Amino acid sequence: MSKNKEANNDSSLSVSKGVESGNSINPDSLQNFRDRNKSLTLSDYVDGIRNGNRTILSRAITLIESTRSEHQDLAQEIIEQCLPETGESIRIGITGVPGVGKSTFIETMGNYITGNGRKLAVLAIDPSSTKTRGSILGDKTRMETLANNPDAFIRPSPTAGSLGGVARKTRETIYLCEAAGYDTIFIETVGVGQSETAVHSMVDFFLLLMLAGAGDELQGIKRGIMEMADTIAINKVDDSTDKHIQQAVREYKNALHLYPPSESGWEPKVTTCSALKGTGIEELWELIQDYISATNENGYFERQRNRQAKHWMYESINNRLQDAFYNDPNVKRQRKKIERKVLEGTISSFKAAQKLIDLYNK
Amino acid sequence: MSKNKEANNDSSLSVSKGVESGNSINPDSLQNFRDRNKSLTLSDYVDGIRNGNRTILSRAITLIESTRSEHQDLAQEIIEQCLPETGESIRIGITGVPGVGKSTFIETMGNYITGNGRKLAVLAIDPSSTKTRGSILGDKTRMETLANNPDAFIRPSPTAGSLGGVARKTRETIYLCEAAGYDTIFIETVGVGQSETAVHSMVDFFLLLMLAGAGDELQGIKRGIMEMADTIAINKVDDSTDKHIQQAVREYKNALHLYPPSESGWEPKVTTCSALKGTGIEELWELIQDYISATNENGYFERQRNRQAKHWMYESINNRLQDAFYNDPNVKRQRKKIERKVLEGTISSFKAAQKLIDLYNK
Repeated sequence: MSKNKEANNDSSLSVSKGVESGNSINPDSLQNFRDRNKSLTLSDYVDGIRNGNRTILSRAITLIESTRSEHQDLAQEIIEQCLPETGESIRIGITGVPGVGKSTFIETMGNYITGNGRKLAVLAIDPSSTKTRGSILGDKTRMETLANNPDAFIRPSPTAGSLGGVARKTRETIYLCEAAGYDTIFIETVGVGQSETAVHSMVDFFLLLMLAGAGDELQGIKRGIMEMADTIAINKVDDSTDKHIQQAVREYKNALHLYPPSESGWEPKVTTCSALKGTGIEELWELIQDYISATNENGYFERQRNRQAKHWMYESINNRLQDAFYNDPNVKRQRKKIERKVLEGTISSFKAAQKLIDLYNK
Repeated sequence: MSKNKEANNDSSLSVSKGVESGNSINPDSLQNFRDRNKSLTLSDYVDGIRNGNRTILSRAITLIESTRSEHQDLAQEIIEQCLPETGESIRIGITGVPGVGKSTFIETMGNYITGNGRKLAVLAIDPSSTKTRGSILGDKTRMETLANNPDAFIRPSPTAGSLGGVARKTRETIYLCEAAGYDTIFIETVGVGQSETAVHSMVDFFLLLMLAGAGDELQGIKRGIMEMADTIAINKVDDSTDKHIQQAVREYKNALHLYPPSESGWEPKVTTCSALKGTGIEELWELIQDYISATNENGYFERQRNRQAKHWMYESINNRLQDAFYNDPNVKRQRKKIERKVLEGTISSFKAAQKLIDLYNK
């Protein structure tokens, strides 16, 4: 029992290792301990996920994140068998620069919607998390009430790999969470880099958190990210009737109007909220519901989902082609040498590529 | 002779077919006619290019643009043998939305620098040119004096293929033009899409043409393109002391200051010109010289060239991997069927990718 106790004690830490914290309030902890350690068959995984067993869900995600090919194969089988149970959730991308109050927002919004009977999975997609491990762990411990909410499941971003790889894993994880009964998926990202495009290609609704007062350029948000936003929520607003706040709302609205209208037929909105005080959260959630209804009605929701599924098929092909190529022993041995020749100018970039391709095809 | 006469007669049309117009004023047209039609060996090509023979250069570029593998192989050999003669030019990307006066600008700037002893090649990189064939042809005929300038070589964008493919071909064409003695390369692009990133990855200096008066959002320029600009030239300026012009200069300067400083150490400039009247052209060319000197001195020029060569090696690998995959007969036969299953939701995007990869590896 001491080992089990230990597992419970560091529940807030265990989140970062990819094990959910819900166990700490689960009375049946001995069973959980067993689930966490015994070897599972394919049908153990699939049944466990379908029954909403969080420990088994966590372990399946760990398979997705594993680089071992037998884990990958098993993961693909699990996903395939879970497929009929997927697709019924609302997938929401949430971005904003550090300091905008993203984790407090996710916690407040998460507790609000689970309080309304929804089940929430929170995923992340920043491959940079190896560098910022501390801060991501920090985020999760700051989301303490959500981490202990039995209707919420928090899973940090895989800590290694290229953006493409991490994005694929996050995308696969969405499927498993949906099969486990989570009907709302938040995917968070830091809002300063390339990850947003990847998130945008896997969500139904893209929410950008901003602050009033600072110009968007000062907030480090790239214009391209603003262009993707279905709604901008100005966070940390105590009084939405304040003159400065109203001006910020107007400015963001003007900025959004510069972009061509979205194919969704939805006009991007600007709202205000205070995640800390819990104000504006309900209104924002209603806005998201409106968006979902509107795009369901005009067919955009399904069209976008189809486009995304196709996109991921081709992304995945591209990933696999590259993985196979760059992990080829011949390519591995020669790549740096040939690259050096390109840099010296003794061989063209194209001939270099051809040489490596020839080595690969041997 | 009648055939040759015909070739001369439609010289302005022949530009769009990828044959330079210079022939129309070349007295040795019979020899050119022969060069254009006889079968050439590898060394014919290489020698012809090194001697600055425009007809042979054109034919070599046609090989680069060809999809036939024997043409591709020959083209790669030509590039390889020309490699020692490459790299000595200044490569300049020129972009701006339609209406900004790009072709007049290129013509005026081109005639100015060739008048100063430089040799200029003008390439383009818009794969969309299949659609806008008319307007590109129009551009070239509007560049009539440059098209007939013996020190200038104009080659429109290949009219078919993906952006990646077109970009690779343009990049390869740069090498051949350099080997043929062109010491200045202009690469033009339309300034509204994705092509600019590709151009940016193959040039030393990126010039953005704009108009005064219209906000940049009204001009359809994406923010990301502005961020890449080393200089913004406001074209169609009759009087640079005009209050409105000065305000536009200030506004563009402010806009450029919002971006983080470039690694080049160069602060992006804003200038004015009138390509039609020929004013501001000399100053702009001096500015470009300043940039080249400054980045040569601080080492950025070479660093960027190296980075670009590396980038193109990996881009080229990726292109070839994808070409091989999507042209595989098994993949060709099954791809649409499997994609349909993804859209129906009977198979995951990842399993679909795996299936196609398995077919490919068979």
